[in-house]
Amino acid sequence: MMMNRMNTNAIRTQRVEEIMSREPLALSPMMRAGEALARLRQVGVPRDFMANCYVVDERFCLLGLVTVRDLIMAPTGKRLDQFMAQPAARLHPEDDQERAVEEMDRLDQVELPVVDEQDRLVGTVTADDAMDVMQAEATEDMERMAAMAPSERPYLRTRVWDLYRSRIFWLLLLMLSAAFTGAIITHFENALAAQVVLTAFIPMLMDTGGNCGSQSSVTVIRGLSLGEIKSGDWLRVMWKELQVGLLCGGTLAAVNMARLCLLGSTDFPVALAVSLTLIVTVTCAKLLGCCLPILASRMRLDPAVMASPLITTIADAVSLVVYFRIAVCLLKL
Amino acid sequence: MMMNRMNTNAIRTQRVEEIMSREPLALSPMMRAGEALARLRQVGVPRDFMANCYVVDERFCLLGLVTVRDLIMAPTGKRLDQFMAQPAARLHPEDDQERAVEEMDRLDQVELPVVDEQDRLVGTVTADDAMDVMQAEATEDMERMAAMAPSERPYLRTRVWDLYRSRIFWLLLLMLSAAFTGAIITHFENALAAQVVLTAFIPMLMDTGGNCGSQSSVTVIRGLSLGEIKSGDWLRVMWKELQVGLLCGGTLAAVNMARLCLLGSTDFPVALAVSLTLIVTVTCAKLLGCCLPILASRMRLDPAVMASPLITTIADAVSLVVYFRIAVCLLKL
Repeated sequence: MMMNRMNTNAIRTQRVEEIMSREPLALSPMMRAGEALARLRQVGVPRDFMANCYVVDERFCLLGLVTVRDLIMAPTGKRLDQFMAQPAARLHPEDDQERAVEEMDRLDQVELPVVDEQDRLVGTVTADDAMDVMQAEATEDMERMAAMAPSERPYLRTRVWDLYRSRIFWLLLLMLSAAFTGAIITHFENALAAQVVLTAFIPMLMDTGGNCGSQSSVTVIRGLSLGEIKSGDWLRVMWKELQVGLLCGGTLAAVNMARLCLLGSTDFPVALAVSLTLIVTVTCAKLLGCCLPILASRMRLDPAVMASPLITTIADAVSLVVYFRIAVCLLKL
Repeated sequence: MMMNRMNTNAIRTQRVEEIMSREPLALSPMMRAGEALARLRQVGVPRDFMANCYVVDERFCLLGLVTVRDLIMAPTGKRLDQFMAQPAARLHPEDDQERAVEEMDRLDQVELPVVDEQDRLVGTVTADDAMDVMQAEATEDMERMAAMAPSERPYLRTRVWDLYRSRIFWLLLLMLSAAFTGAIITHFENALAAQVVLTAFIPMLMDTGGNCGSQSSVTVIRGLSLGEIKSGDWLRVMWKELQVGLLCGGTLAAVNMARLCLLGSTDFPVALAVSLTLIVTVTCAKLLGCCLPILASRMRLDPAVMASPLITTIADAVSLVVYFRIAVCLLKL
C-alpha cells in the first residue's frame, strides 16, 4: 500500500489518448469548399465538433486543417488544399496530457489534432478536455505540496478512510524525520540547560525558515509546471534566490534585533545569536527551496513532492544547528 | 505599499468584460439556415469565431444559439428559431472571471455568451481565455498558500526587489506572531529547566501540527475554489476532519510511543505526554485547517490566505500550550 502511494509521486503519466475524441472530421484535399459543407451535412457532424475540419491524404496522413470559418468564407468552388492551414501543433496519443494542456494554452488553441507515428490523424483534443486536465493537475500539485497523495474524487464524496490513507504516509515520514531535529537539540542539551532562554526562539526560527523555504519552493515548482522555468536554469534561479534570501534574512534580522532591544528583556548576545541565525537560516531555506524541486525535476520526479513540508523538515535541522553553533560561540557556553 | 500588498489579498475581482470578445455573431430568429450561412459569408466571420452563432431579437436580447454544427446540418429552409438552443449559461460583464471558468469547466462548454442586465448580447468568453484565467488563478492560490503576494510576471523575468517585496510582508507578520509562541515557552521556563528533555520534542510536535493543518487547509481551499465545497458545508467538513484528525493523531501517537519505548532513552511519562499531545495537536490542527478557510470565504476574503503558514503559526501555539499543560500534569512539574 505504501509503495503504491509512493509510486503515485512519480510524474503523472496520463496520456493524450485517454482524453482525445476519436472521430475527427477528415476530408480530402481535392474536395471543394461547397462539397465539404455538403459532405458534412451528409455524414453528420460529430457531436463534439468544434471548429476544425482536417484534411488528410488517402493513407489518412494529416495534411492540414480548414476551420469552419474558412469553409464558410471560401468560394464554394475553391479546393481545400488551396486554403488549408497547418495545425499549430500535433499531439501524439502517448504524449503526456500535460503537454496537450501546455501547447493549447501557449498557442491559444481550442483544438489540436492527434497523429500517430506515421502522422496519421487519430483524434483531436479539445479545450473542454484540456480544462479538466488543467484543474486536475493544479489540484494534484497543491496536494503534493501539502504532503498528501493526490485524491481522485471531490472532498465531500471522499471517505474518511481514504482521506486518512492519502495523508498518513507523509505525516509519519515527516514525523520520524523530525526526530533528527530532536536529536540535534539533545546534542546541545548542555547549552540549553545553561541558557533556557534559547529555547524560546526555537519556534520562531523554525517557522521562519519553513516559511521562506515554502515561498521559494512553491514559486519554483509552479514555474517548472507552467514551463516558465526549465531545469537548466538552476544557476540563474539559485543566484536570484540567494539575493532574495539575503534581503529577506537581513530585514527579518534587523526587525527582530530592534524588537528584542526595545523590549529589553533579552541579553544582547542572545539577541545577536538569534538575528545572525535568521540571516543564515533564511538564505539556506531559500536556496533549499529552489534547489530541491529543480533536482527532483532533473531526476524525473514530480517537483511538487519537494515542497514545503519536506523542505521545512530539512530547514529546521539546518536552522537549529546554525543557531546552537552561533549561540555556543557568542555566549561561550 | 504594504497596505497595497494587503489589498491584493481580497478576493480577485477581475471581470469577465476584460477577457470577453466583443463581436459575437448575432442573427435574427426569422433567418433561415441557408440565409444564415450566406450572411456569415457576406459579413465575414470574426477571427476568434468558435462554434456558436447567437440569435437575438431586434433589441439585441439573446434568444438562443445555433451551433455551426446545427447550421450545417439543418435543411437550408429551416428558420433559426425552429432549431436554436438555449445557452448552457449566461455570463455578465461584471461577473468575476472565476465564475466564467467555473461555468465553462462545469458545463463542458468552450464558449459562453455574455449579456448585460437587459439580457442584451454584449460578447462571448472562449475556452482559450478561460484557460489563461484558470492557470493564473491556480498560481495565485498557490502563492497565497505559501504566504506570498501574487506575482504578475514569470519568475525569471521578475526582479529580485519585486520578489523580495512580494515575500517580506508575510514573513515579517509570521515572524512577529511566532513571538507569541516564544512567550508560551518562556511562561513554562521552569518546567523546561527541570526537564530539558521536553525541548527535544518541540520541533517534531510543531512540524507535525503544521503539516496536518496544511493538509486540511489546502484540501479545503482547493475544494472551495473548485466549487466542490460550499461555505454552508462547514459542519460536514468539520465532522470529516475531526474523524481524520483522530485517526491520524492516533496513528502518529502510537508510532511515536512505540519508537520512544523501543529506543528506551525516554522516560515513560515524557513519552506519554508527547503522544497525548500529538493526538490533541493533530486534531486541533485539522479542525483549524478546515475552519479558517471556510471562515475566510464567509467573510468574502480569499480562503487561500488562510493556508499553511498562518495555520502553522496558530497550530504551534496550540501544540505548545497543550504539550506543556500535559507535561506539567504527568510529570508533576
